[in-house]
Amino acid sequence: MPAKRVPDIVVARLPLYLRALSAMQNGGKEFTSSQEMAQWLGISSAQIRKDLSHFGEFGKQGTGYSVAGLQEKLRQILNLEREWPIVIIGAGNIGSAVANYPGFAHRGFRVCAVFDNDPKKIGSMVGIYEVCDVHQLPEFVREHDIRLAMIAVPAESAQEVADLAIASGITAILNYAPVNLIVPEHVRVENIDPVLHLQHMTYYLS
Amino acid sequence: MPAKRVPDIVVARLPLYLRALSAMQNGGKEFTSSQEMAQWLGISSAQIRKDLSHFGEFGKQGTGYSVAGLQEKLRQILNLEREWPIVIIGAGNIGSAVANYPGFAHRGFRVCAVFDNDPKKIGSMVGIYEVCDVHQLPEFVREHDIRLAMIAVPAESAQEVADLAIASGITAILNYAPVNLIVPEHVRVENIDPVLHLQHMTYYLS
Repeated sequence: MPAKRVPDIVVARLPLYLRALSAMQNGGKEFTSSQEMAQWLGISSAQIRKDLSHFGEFGKQGTGYSVAGLQEKLRQILNLEREWPIVIIGAGNIGSAVANYPGFAHRGFRVCAVFDNDPKKIGSMVGIYEVCDVHQLPEFVREHDIRLAMIAVPAESAQEVADLAIASGITAILNYAPVNLIVPEHVRVENIDPVLHLQHMTYYLS
Repeated sequence: MPAKRVPDIVVARLPLYLRALSAMQNGGKEFTSSQEMAQWLGISSAQIRKDLSHFGEFGKQGTGYSVAGLQEKLRQILNLEREWPIVIIGAGNIGSAVANYPGFAHRGFRVCAVFDNDPKKIGSMVGIYEVCDVHQLPEFVREHDIRLAMIAVPAESAQEVADLAIASGITAILNYAPVNLIVPEHVRVENIDPVLHLQHMTYYLS
């Protein structure tokens, strides 16, 4: 991998490429091209080639990209050769839906526990997970050396929960609460808020 | 608004600015600065000023931005001065969670119906919504002139459902199914797949 820092916007597209390649493989495809990937993804083929060129030369003149080979390379780049354990904090509608999301398997992640602070939820089942008391979070995160947390609590509790998670050792947060979390520099946050996506699209509607 | 096309990556950040300003207003703040917004958002103040400069001059020397005024301007830019009706297709875990998401109100959107094709779900309640038969979708979308749909069906049905929605008049899709939808040029798609976000973050973990 080159020492030069790859723009974050490029990194953000790599998982999309990986998802498309995986779908191609499921469809029995062995080779593809930047043109074909462009059609799948609605991203220009020049952009795809430029993005991938940050990480070396993958395509072969004439045959294009090996679907399996490029997936393997992208998994290496994205640190997905291991399986990452995740904790979910918040056992409400969103947390429960995410805990049962079938899309984690074979993509590098495994939900290993769900936490809540509501005595009525603690001990109940969310899919295959028994909801744990959020007070047990710090010990659990430390014991299992967990770095990733998904936060799905109400907006007004999200910062407090994030602070607790970070103090326990979490360094990457996928935040479903519709608030901007304030975190130390070593922690990364990505936000999932459907309204942000909807508002982005209404810009183009009239 | 200037005739020059604003880069989509800039448009994508405007809803984040709007969300931060709204939180500031709830906290009683009347004025803010690009520096303060930068601290809230983890985006550089230069980037924020540059993004906003695409749409004119908003700040005042000395007082900075009016929190209410800048929100109003962003709502105009993002076409949020009206309320957009949305349909949700898929009444499973994710669809149900999204239908009950409290974050739509006062942000420009109103869920007006939930559809599914499962006879066991049709007629049942998802929060305040009675699940409708997906066969009724085309008529409903046309009758209520709906442009936005959220698709929360299994991956293998998503393309079929998208085709039906688009044929009915939908032009913007928020897609929760973990597949790339193939759509005509006049249709916009945004994807919500937690794994894409998690894989983006693991790039930075080691």
